Amino acid sequence: MAKARAHPAAKRKPAAKAAAKRKAPPKSAGVADSAHSVSPLAPRTYAKLPPLAGVRLATGEAGIKYKSRTDLLVAVLAPGTQVAGVFTRSKTASAPVDWCRAQMKAGTARALVVNSGNANAFTGKAGAAAARDVAVSTAAALGCRAQEVFLASTGVIGEPLPAERITAIVGKLVEAGAAEGWSEAARAIMTTDTYPKLATASPLIDGRKVTINGIAKGSGMIAPDMATMLAFVFTDARLPSTVLQDLLSAGVKTSFNAITVDSDTSTSDTLMFFATGKGAAHPEISAATDKRLGDFRQKLDALLRDLALQVVRDGEGAQKLIQIDVTGAENDGAAHRVGMAIANSPLVKTAIAGSDANWGRVVMAVGKAGEKADRDSLTISFGGHVVAEKGYRADGYNEKVATRAVSGRTVEIAVDLGIGKGKARVWTCDLTHGYIDINGSYRS
Amino acid sequence: MAKARAHPAAKRKPAAKAAAKRKAPPKSAGVADSAHSVSPLAPRTYAKLPPLAGVRLATGEAGIKYKSRTDLLVAVLAPGTQVAGVFTRSKTASAPVDWCRAQMKAGTARALVVNSGNANAFTGKAGAAAARDVAVSTAAALGCRAQEVFLASTGVIGEPLPAERITAIVGKLVEAGAAEGWSEAARAIMTTDTYPKLATASPLIDGRKVTINGIAKGSGMIAPDMATMLAFVFTDARLPSTVLQDLLSAGVKTSFNAITVDSDTSTSDTLMFFATGKGAAHPEISAATDKRLGDFRQKLDALLRDLALQVVRDGEGAQKLIQIDVTGAENDGAAHRVGMAIANSPLVKTAIAGSDANWGRVVMAVGKAGEKADRDSLTISFGGHVVAEKGYRADGYNEKVATRAVSGRTVEIAVDLGIGKGKARVWTCDLTHGYIDINGSYRS
Repeated sequence: MAKARAHPAAKRKPAAKAAAKRKAPPKSAGVADSAHSVSPLAPRTYAKLPPLAGVRLATGEAGIKYKSRTDLLVAVLAPGTQVAGVFTRSKTASAPVDWCRAQMKAGTARALVVNSGNANAFTGKAGAAAARDVAVSTAAALGCRAQEVFLASTGVIGEPLPAERITAIVGKLVEAGAAEGWSEAARAIMTTDTYPKLATASPLIDGRKVTINGIAKGSGMIAPDMATMLAFVFTDARLPSTVLQDLLSAGVKTSFNAITVDSDTSTSDTLMFFATGKGAAHPEISAATDKRLGDFRQKLDALLRDLALQVVRDGEGAQKLIQIDVTGAENDGAAHRVGMAIANSPLVKTAIAGSDANWGRVVMAVGKAGEKADRDSLTISFGGHVVAEKGYRADGYNEKVATRAVSGRTVEIAVDLGIGKGKARVWTCDLTHGYIDINGSYRS
Repeated sequence: MAKARAHPAAKRKPAAKAAAKRKAPPKSAGVADSAHSVSPLAPRTYAKLPPLAGVRLATGEAGIKYKSRTDLLVAVLAPGTQVAGVFTRSKTASAPVDWCRAQMKAGTARALVVNSGNANAFTGKAGAAAARDVAVSTAAALGCRAQEVFLASTGVIGEPLPAERITAIVGKLVEAGAAEGWSEAARAIMTTDTYPKLATASPLIDGRKVTINGIAKGSGMIAPDMATMLAFVFTDARLPSTVLQDLLSAGVKTSFNAITVDSDTSTSDTLMFFATGKGAAHPEISAATDKRLGDFRQKLDALLRDLALQVVRDGEGAQKLIQIDVTGAENDGAAHRVGMAIANSPLVKTAIAGSDANWGRVVMAVGKAGEKADRDSLTISFGGHVVAEKGYRADGYNEKVATRAVSGRTVEIAVDLGIGKGKARVWTCDLTHGYIDINGSYRS
């Protein structure tokens, strides 16, 4: 997201063709044309999101950068909607991120406006003014305060945002907002994504069923230890912004902050969580630790993880999903950092792309992570097959079995450091020619 | 170096062809066959190293992994030779690194034995025994203590080192050692390197001319903030190991620790500095700060930088050399880390590969570096042309000029953070299809 160039996100093949492609795993390190077809790791079917009380959606063609596709999403939210957010830790954050951070303290939201095609990042005072213009015009159409309009932009960095193209149609979209249209909403915020990311869940709060709907986008400039890419989660539950924030900050750790595509962190990473309170009546909840939130919390975490994995599966050029489990670390933080060192290693990622069970590169990545590690107590498995242990190639090492474990669409790497109880799970994708094709071509 | 697979380092084209290739910069993000030809960034001519008093060289074909090429180097050193070293900070360091660290305290050396084709890393007790075997057999042939034999290995990780193939011929090589043969020495330690790395200098110490000769190898698994790849520097000056260590530790900061190819740090990074004391007589020097070492220090630093740049220029798949200057940072350390964040960004490296003046990605990399930065005081230049300043695209921005600046073989990026006096210069290469080809193919 917030990619520093515009890439034609068109030419998306229908899901049926993607499914056909999926049957034949790649023999080489990714085919050159993969950038333009649906990722072979795409879900077989996209989640069908139900209407969510208190949310009306509309999408439009503002023509910001792309032609003949929607590039603007407006979500109109019921009065009293509570909001929480997690944002990029980049020191060069975008204007919409600055705007949202400033408005987040009040904790209430009436609208979300998202555009693709331009990140409105590194655009100076003009960028801040452009963000304000979009918020003000949306608020005018809706009859609310501009501070209740939340914004996100994704696309090229450093180009002035033509806000007038947004303000020209945002009023119509506010009027046109409808309960249906989640799939269209997810498509409108795509840049180099090859499929829309959607997820839904129906947890119970004190026996009353509520709904959570989420959409997200990827798919490059995706990195760890920061907030996330663009993702918006909505619920009709009645929860105050403080509770939403606690739930979100906890859930992001095992989802969006546990994935990496290319180690590059966007200027625009944004995850927001809106609660309209217009669903089934349930008792008032004032703390995220409330036991009656158990099911909600569990299903929210699963939904965030689902969306995060959809982002990895659509990583630029991705041909394989790699899951990395680290156990036996000094603590959970150390395990996470070792996992990310493996997940971000170009040599590990290219080896997996080439179906090479090259566990020596995993040893290297563990060694460079900077965390406590003991070469002679390290155990490494590929797909459950132990390839290395006690500072040496495992006695039962079988090259054929190890190779098979790295040859499919999903690869599982397990590393036990053997020195403590810290553990973490992270995900990444392989590094292929597709990534070079997408990012090594000229912007326009 | 210490790559976790063997790659045929053969098929090296003669320098004349490389020079011819160099005239036509790439139009796309690196051609697929670049892995097997001499890097287009190779020096036009290789340095011719003179004999160095107190050093005799021999190379041989041990057949460790490669066929029909030399893979073993023995440097026999005069009695009393002083030694210093800097090694990988990897937690999974190789057996030869463990061996050298243990022997370094005594500070004297009689031989250096280096093999390519196998890193002897993650090879457990057998690996430690193999390293000892090589040292013991070399010492026996030479009539010295095993502790005076220094070792380095580079190649596949996790494969047992067939030490007997080395011990079988090391005695002959000790006998065959000759004053000539620096170019052959540099070739014997290559793995995926496409050309040998050599440098020489003739500084004065108190008016007496001494000689420094250095050889090095790359060319993947090259990363910052650690020691270095394999590099061996020799001088005939009469300097104690303590002085050598101080000079080396200082010089590595602006040379090998200021380069990165792929952010992956080897298990075997080794830089050693030997002083035979057999050159022109000069006064005794007991401190690195001695003013009479001024010329020596300056030329040593330049030689280390020369070797380090030769390594970057031979980075796997490299088509362009990228020099990054960071100024105006909070301090020099912060400047270095910002420089490395830019140098390690896959999105920056692929943009340069595609001759795309995509300065938005430089903004992104500055933002993610985690160092103090102010979006609105940031200035970015490509080849001296200011592309961004004061949080916005520069008024005088010219796309053609900017594109030209990233289209040649050498690309200069300058970033001024505008908040302090810290500065640093680092180097990297672009990320091309060649890197994927080299590292995404099966080991054997």
